[in-house]
Amino acid sequence: MTVFLVGAGPGDPGLLTVRAAAVLAAADVVVYDRLSAESLLDLAPATAERISVGKAPGRADMTQDDINALLVERGKAGRQVVRLKGGDPFVFARGGEEAAALLEAGVPFEVVPGVTSAIAVPAYAGIPVTLRHSSTSVTLVTGHEDPDVGEHGSVDWEAIARVGGTIVVLMGVARIGVIASRLMAAGRPADTPVASITWGTRPEQHTVRATLGTIGQQTLQAPATIVIGDVAAQNLEWFERRPLFGQRIVVTRARAQASEMTARLHALGAAVIEVPTIVIDDPDDGGAALRRAAAAVGSYDWLILTSANGAERLLNCLHDARDLGGVRVAAIGPGTASALAEGGVEPALVPAVATQEGLLAALPRPAAACGGARS
Amino acid sequence: MTVFLVGAGPGDPGLLTVRAAAVLAAADVVVYDRLSAESLLDLAPATAERISVGKAPGRADMTQDDINALLVERGKAGRQVVRLKGGDPFVFARGGEEAAALLEAGVPFEVVPGVTSAIAVPAYAGIPVTLRHSSTSVTLVTGHEDPDVGEHGSVDWEAIARVGGTIVVLMGVARIGVIASRLMAAGRPADTPVASITWGTRPEQHTVRATLGTIGQQTLQAPATIVIGDVAAQNLEWFERRPLFGQRIVVTRARAQASEMTARLHALGAAVIEVPTIVIDDPDDGGAALRRAAAAVGSYDWLILTSANGAERLLNCLHDARDLGGVRVAAIGPGTASALAEGGVEPALVPAVATQEGLLAALPRPAAACGGARS
Repeated sequence: MTVFLVGAGPGDPGLLTVRAAAVLAAADVVVYDRLSAESLLDLAPATAERISVGKAPGRADMTQDDINALLVERGKAGRQVVRLKGGDPFVFARGGEEAAALLEAGVPFEVVPGVTSAIAVPAYAGIPVTLRHSSTSVTLVTGHEDPDVGEHGSVDWEAIARVGGTIVVLMGVARIGVIASRLMAAGRPADTPVASITWGTRPEQHTVRATLGTIGQQTLQAPATIVIGDVAAQNLEWFERRPLFGQRIVVTRARAQASEMTARLHALGAAVIEVPTIVIDDPDDGGAALRRAAAAVGSYDWLILTSANGAERLLNCLHDARDLGGVRVAAIGPGTASALAEGGVEPALVPAVATQEGLLAALPRPAAACGGARS
Repeated sequence: MTVFLVGAGPGDPGLLTVRAAAVLAAADVVVYDRLSAESLLDLAPATAERISVGKAPGRADMTQDDINALLVERGKAGRQVVRLKGGDPFVFARGGEEAAALLEAGVPFEVVPGVTSAIAVPAYAGIPVTLRHSSTSVTLVTGHEDPDVGEHGSVDWEAIARVGGTIVVLMGVARIGVIASRLMAAGRPADTPVASITWGTRPEQHTVRATLGTIGQQTLQAPATIVIGDVAAQNLEWFERRPLFGQRIVVTRARAQASEMTARLHALGAAVIEVPTIVIDDPDDGGAALRRAAAAVGSYDWLILTSANGAERLLNCLHDARDLGGVRVAAIGPGTASALAEGGVEPALVPAVATQEGLLAALPRPAAACGGARS
């Protein structure tokens, strides 16, 4: 029984940590906020309990006390619990309160820090938050003040302005006009560069560039990461210039087979939507007919496999590849051949053209058997 | 040809991102600094060129201009280049300068942000850098001022003090006394909590807790992450309380086989040192004797395999598992049996006791053949 407080990173699934992927894959329960990449939930086992505690701005399905109590309860029940949060769990995400509740209740917990949006999102917009000759500090600050904050909690924007380094404002879209005015009143010039990045690190990323003097007039979309300071004038563009950036592509392959194609399209900058139009599933008879055929497979002359799925299913039915005896095996194409090879079977025939027609043309043609096969 | 500017995270190999692991695995060239986890270099192919540009404090093997030129040159040569940096490449790591040089030279690049030490190291010491009622901002600042900094580059510690939020100082061990004095002179109380974490996120992690008034008298070890502010009094301990924390364990298995054991010991908190005392390698004859034996394997009665390595090597020599014909296969234990099963072969015999003696006792004993085998 351990509760893992896990940072999911800013949205790009590649920015998940190795450790986060591992604990998700072993989770019994996943407790998640409104995330920038809900596809990460697919990494948890299909049987895992998934609980949304969605804290969208302006509504609160569960209070923080409720969430703490839920984590303690599920942890005490001996479950492997993943508390998944966007970005990093300890950067404006109340992970500290959850850790304190778990510690007090005696529930073992671990923290899996994540890549924070405050740094990675500017990087994807071509903005380094520190730069040797212009910024030796970066202040991460929330623009969404909690109504409960006490004396020590309220943000002193005038003091932040005087630091002179980079300022990164999270959750600040609604109040950016007021924030900009307070920074200028404290001496930051009106021409200080500002960049606001919406849906950062995702294929939908959109960057608005302005200055402290003009940002208040811009229409900004939440959720955004807002960078203020000299570095915001940088445009070391790489993410938004990739060949498929901004394109939406639907992949219709079965989910288990889509991932490689999705990863390649994603690396080229596309927004990929997986809509599996086929599902590879067991037959209705639970595989009984396949097992009967497999038991007698040694009595055939040829075994023709027309998909990697078919090859894998058949090999799973055999105790030993040698049960195939002297049967000659034909594979429709290289994917099927490679599935056979992984099971220890070398196909006798792989046609040059990987289609049913190509396979038929390549098979030896015993004249007498032809009529029989059609009957 | 792409140059990847990659953050390696703070030291715990689990905090590497999925994307960083993928680009390392495909690297032709890795250009790396003094890292907190040089074991990450093992993720690159053995054939990859590895270039240390080690910027240890007080010495500089290569200037930043040299490094920029190297990245441009290797990138233009069409290589997949990984520029690996501890933490995040854009947090006090000159990644911005390298990206600018690549952009100017027309060499395609991508940024792979990392988990920054500034946030993750405090988390491993039980300190959340933000906390709802005590800290609504966190300022990351370098304590190692560059002698070249201009007017905008120098750190205004007095202004940072007045912000009132959390301060995280990186590379600040040598100057922490001066920094603490300046923060106190600007109004931060002498009893403000301070925590200095050396070798954070690693099994050697060591935390020193003090206050602004006392930190100057402490002996701190570099490299350290120093947290200043109310949150530094938090001790949501989890990492340092794991059962094997602080233990050093040597794993002597062959490198390729050590990883699972290493991962489990590491998860329990141990510092694991891999010292492979055996190496699994090809025979001096390049496998010719094995291939001759494999070609004739069908003529034997029994094939006895005493290790998973042996089973894998043999199966690799066969075109098709059926080349084994009617040979009965014995596996010394479940590991060997499972290597056989993966190659499509079901062993006829696996002794209850997985030793050579157990195997001999379980084998049928043809009296006549015994003497023959000894001749």
